[in-house]
Amino acid sequence: MNSILITSGNVVDRLWLHFSAAYIITGVACYLLYYEYKYISGKRLEYFMTSKPLPQHFTVLVRAIPVTDGGSVSDAVDKFFKEYHSSTYLSHTVVHQTGKLRRLLNDAENICTKLANIKSVRHPSGDPPGKFLGIFGRNDLVGKYQKRLEDLEENVRMEQSDATRSRQEVAAAFVSFRSRYGAANAIYIRQSDNPTEWQTEHAPDPHDVYWPFFSTSFMERWISKFVVFVASILLILVFLLVAAFVQGLTYMEQLETWLPFLKNILEIAVVSQLITGYLPSVILHFLSSYVPSIMKLFSTMQGFISVSGIERSACNKMLRFTIWSVFFANVLTGSVLGQLKIFLDPKEIPSRLAVVVPAQASFFITYVVTSWTSIASELTQTASLLYHLWGSCAKCCKRDDSKPPSMHYHSEIPRVLLFGLLGLTYFIVSPLILPFVLVYFCLGYFIYRNQLFNVYSPKYDTGGRFWPIVHNGTIFSLVLMHIIAIGVFGLKKLPLASSLLVPLPVLTLLFNEYCRNRFLPIFKAYSTEALIKKDREEQSKPEMAEFFSNLVTAYCDPAMKPIQRSSNSDDRTTPLLSSA
Amino acid sequence: MNSILITSGNVVDRLWLHFSAAYIITGVACYLLYYEYKYISGKRLEYFMTSKPLPQHFTVLVRAIPVTDGGSVSDAVDKFFKEYHSSTYLSHTVVHQTGKLRRLLNDAENICTKLANIKSVRHPSGDPPGKFLGIFGRNDLVGKYQKRLEDLEENVRMEQSDATRSRQEVAAAFVSFRSRYGAANAIYIRQSDNPTEWQTEHAPDPHDVYWPFFSTSFMERWISKFVVFVASILLILVFLLVAAFVQGLTYMEQLETWLPFLKNILEIAVVSQLITGYLPSVILHFLSSYVPSIMKLFSTMQGFISVSGIERSACNKMLRFTIWSVFFANVLTGSVLGQLKIFLDPKEIPSRLAVVVPAQASFFITYVVTSWTSIASELTQTASLLYHLWGSCAKCCKRDDSKPPSMHYHSEIPRVLLFGLLGLTYFIVSPLILPFVLVYFCLGYFIYRNQLFNVYSPKYDTGGRFWPIVHNGTIFSLVLMHIIAIGVFGLKKLPLASSLLVPLPVLTLLFNEYCRNRFLPIFKAYSTEALIKKDREEQSKPEMAEFFSNLVTAYCDPAMKPIQRSSNSDDRTTPLLSSA
Repeated sequence: MNSILITSGNVVDRLWLHFSAAYIITGVACYLLYYEYKYISGKRLEYFMTSKPLPQHFTVLVRAIPVTDGGSVSDAVDKFFKEYHSSTYLSHTVVHQTGKLRRLLNDAENICTKLANIKSVRHPSGDPPGKFLGIFGRNDLVGKYQKRLEDLEENVRMEQSDATRSRQEVAAAFVSFRSRYGAANAIYIRQSDNPTEWQTEHAPDPHDVYWPFFSTSFMERWISKFVVFVASILLILVFLLVAAFVQGLTYMEQLETWLPFLKNILEIAVVSQLITGYLPSVILHFLSSYVPSIMKLFSTMQGFISVSGIERSACNKMLRFTIWSVFFANVLTGSVLGQLKIFLDPKEIPSRLAVVVPAQASFFITYVVTSWTSIASELTQTASLLYHLWGSCAKCCKRDDSKPPSMHYHSEIPRVLLFGLLGLTYFIVSPLILPFVLVYFCLGYFIYRNQLFNVYSPKYDTGGRFWPIVHNGTIFSLVLMHIIAIGVFGLKKLPLASSLLVPLPVLTLLFNEYCRNRFLPIFKAYSTEALIKKDREEQSKPEMAEFFSNLVTAYCDPAMKPIQRSSNSDDRTTPLLSSA
Repeated sequence: MNSILITSGNVVDRLWLHFSAAYIITGVACYLLYYEYKYISGKRLEYFMTSKPLPQHFTVLVRAIPVTDGGSVSDAVDKFFKEYHSSTYLSHTVVHQTGKLRRLLNDAENICTKLANIKSVRHPSGDPPGKFLGIFGRNDLVGKYQKRLEDLEENVRMEQSDATRSRQEVAAAFVSFRSRYGAANAIYIRQSDNPTEWQTEHAPDPHDVYWPFFSTSFMERWISKFVVFVASILLILVFLLVAAFVQGLTYMEQLETWLPFLKNILEIAVVSQLITGYLPSVILHFLSSYVPSIMKLFSTMQGFISVSGIERSACNKMLRFTIWSVFFANVLTGSVLGQLKIFLDPKEIPSRLAVVVPAQASFFITYVVTSWTSIASELTQTASLLYHLWGSCAKCCKRDDSKPPSMHYHSEIPRVLLFGLLGLTYFIVSPLILPFVLVYFCLGYFIYRNQLFNVYSPKYDTGGRFWPIVHNGTIFSLVLMHIIAIGVFGLKKLPLASSLLVPLPVLTLLFNEYCRNRFLPIFKAYSTEALIKKDREEQSKPEMAEFFSNLVTAYCDPAMKPIQRSSNSDDRTTPLLSSA
């Protein structure tokens, strides 16, 4: 009797331990989130206050410019801004449709690359001159390419002069101001009585502008947004089918049915353990590695004006995809429709999750262990190496190796957040996963630190704008952990513990709301205080005059600049075709 | 055989007629909504461009002002705005806590009213002097009241001098600028690096300010918002119980059980028809008439700074209450929880509504007919008359009859929208209701026109800001009509018609989204174009100097102004106690 009481007491004590652990871990996580949000906000303000003058702080992108008959976009912009922003308006650059021009330039660049390849084969260092079997063929080829290149250059010059005429103007322009505060005035106060005209927004860094965006009309962009939305949903659902197939692989009988000739090998104990334990995760990782590029392609079609905007949107899509496809799909078994039906029964969600989540603990532990190798391959850059070797062999897809690689935030951040989600949700039900997740994070810390400092070169600097994505992902993981804990205590017939846990997600969401009001506006816009202080600091500096004269031409479309052929065509490192 | 085919053909034709009617009525409604939104936006801009200078266009309400130790709110405001808005900043008025002061002034006003009553009884025109039985008693009373009034005035003066000292300053101020554009700069661009400090918003009309709001602290306001939210939900649910009781009254047996002594009367045919047909609607109307005041009280506690803001919020609450309690509660029978459960089964909603809505058609026809009498009582102002008579008899609650009444938008607009909802939703299933609804609208048009031109005097002018509420209410009615129509066609086993109707709510919501982008911003803020044009127009006018000197004192709290007693206390029309 006593031993029964003691045993049941122990079990109950352990559950109350889990209960208090839920509160403690939530409190610690929220404290760390607050501290980090505050720290990064401070860094962002410091970055702004200590930066040298940047074109994007003084420039505004204006769209939906109404043009009167017979007038041009350029005249309309000039008139409007001289009328209403006379003291701060500096200059403007109208955007032109340059889709055709860009295609011509791409073709010309490809031909130059092929020419360079041929010439490098022709004069390799130390090759005997005996190899003239194909020299005559190569000479013809060189002549043909050079003729084609000259034709292309002629076309490009014609297109450029066409594009500068009014009929290829897009109703959009980059407008530059003499002060940051002047630019902010144009962005945050609606310009026109008709809200669909003279729409203004922040301009991106000139090197960060995604020029092909402007070559589509408004209707094409609207339709693209809708198509992209449907396509992302379809991709997520299709991936679920693949994940279900992967789950099915864990059954040896299935494999033996599909691949009977391997039956003998499969029956060896080691092989069967490897396949059932390791193979599903490997396949899942392999397939998942293609999805970031597809999501980035979708974001490209959605009409963003900057590469950083495309990557942030792709990061959000990848986060939703990763959490749904890797976590929920592997946890909720059954058909796709069956999985979606769980959301029609909100009351059943905690108990359902509390049943299925612990059941998949071993799968996810394996998934985390598999990810150690993907972290290691990040260090060795295996994927890039393989791609480079493939490119050298095939001679068809040669990547531009002159620029250093840059960090793919849209694939890395969601992956890190996924492991955060796994750690937090399995913390209550299966704490065994924690050491593996911690090893992943430790490895990741050192490896990413090395990569970011020594290997990758940043393509753009958003000033911390990816942080809110991380914050929101972590809040979501916390609330999911609470829901699972409520379900677990419900299943263990401890309604008191269940109901005492209900305030926890409410408090977490209130905390998130506070952070949204306290910090998020800093990531969307700079304040009057900061803008005016910075403007006053720089007013008297002599280098501002030079900056403003450069600003006038900062936002010219690179495709519109006059091209020049490099005279020294033996030099492999200089691009043959470059803009002035 | 032929007759069967013809009959079924007729039935099918009628259904297709209803189907096309759904499309036509939606198209006509959307066209009218677009035209009206455009017209009212145009009127709003015209109102702005033709208005004389108004204090609220030049003033900004600043809240959450950070105060350094030893400093005052006034100094902090002055320093901040001279630093960052030096060219446009004019003056500021700090808000003080005046709750106690207002209570003292109310008491003094009440005593003055009582004194005036006594004196009017003492010297009624033409009364014989024989009524001196109570004169000595009245003299004592007059002396007592006058002594009390002097004490109160002394207290008021002391409180006013206290309040002007720093310790009763609220961290909020009205800041005035020299131009509308300057004020807009302060509102739409975040002022401080810390988003929770120096929060700015539009200031209301000085006469429209709801001063008691400022006397509560930030935490009190936050808690009030939460309490108000819960209280409105509770009110709506409680009202549903009352509505269920009303439904029960339609059963004569219930009445005979509760009131057995009336059995003989109830058995008369006319009486029983009157009771079952008319009484439920009358009771519903009577109870509903108290709810607007309760909702306005809730809005008052929510922390709005202007009376127009309170009424707009009360209008939204009343709209939700009216639609839920009068429409849904009477349509979905069963317990409150049973009714709420319908939302957990989204797929069942169309078919469920298609069954229950037609069943209540007769109830709503009666409801519309009853409302004709409430429209008529609007014309005769019966409620005000009864209240005035009651006040004269009771001598206790005498209303201030010196000010003309004003339109209660928060109760009238939701009522009109309810009849729009009834007309649109019953249009498909029971078109018999349409003539009654049209009579209501015709009566309403003439009666409200008369009231607004000849009877009511506006308390405030929002410039059309109630229109988006009407637009959203109508869009909701249209979508509800579509859902019911989809359910009806599903029940009649016409899946083709059902699925052809599905694009209709989608298109309606897309239309609403377009209107939200095209027109709604005009109702939230004026554009740079309008502000700068208006500023330039007035720059050279001589009356602006006088306007600016008045602007400096426009936002003083009326409770803080020095009081003066009117010397001629026989004059009944002049208020005895008035501010300078």
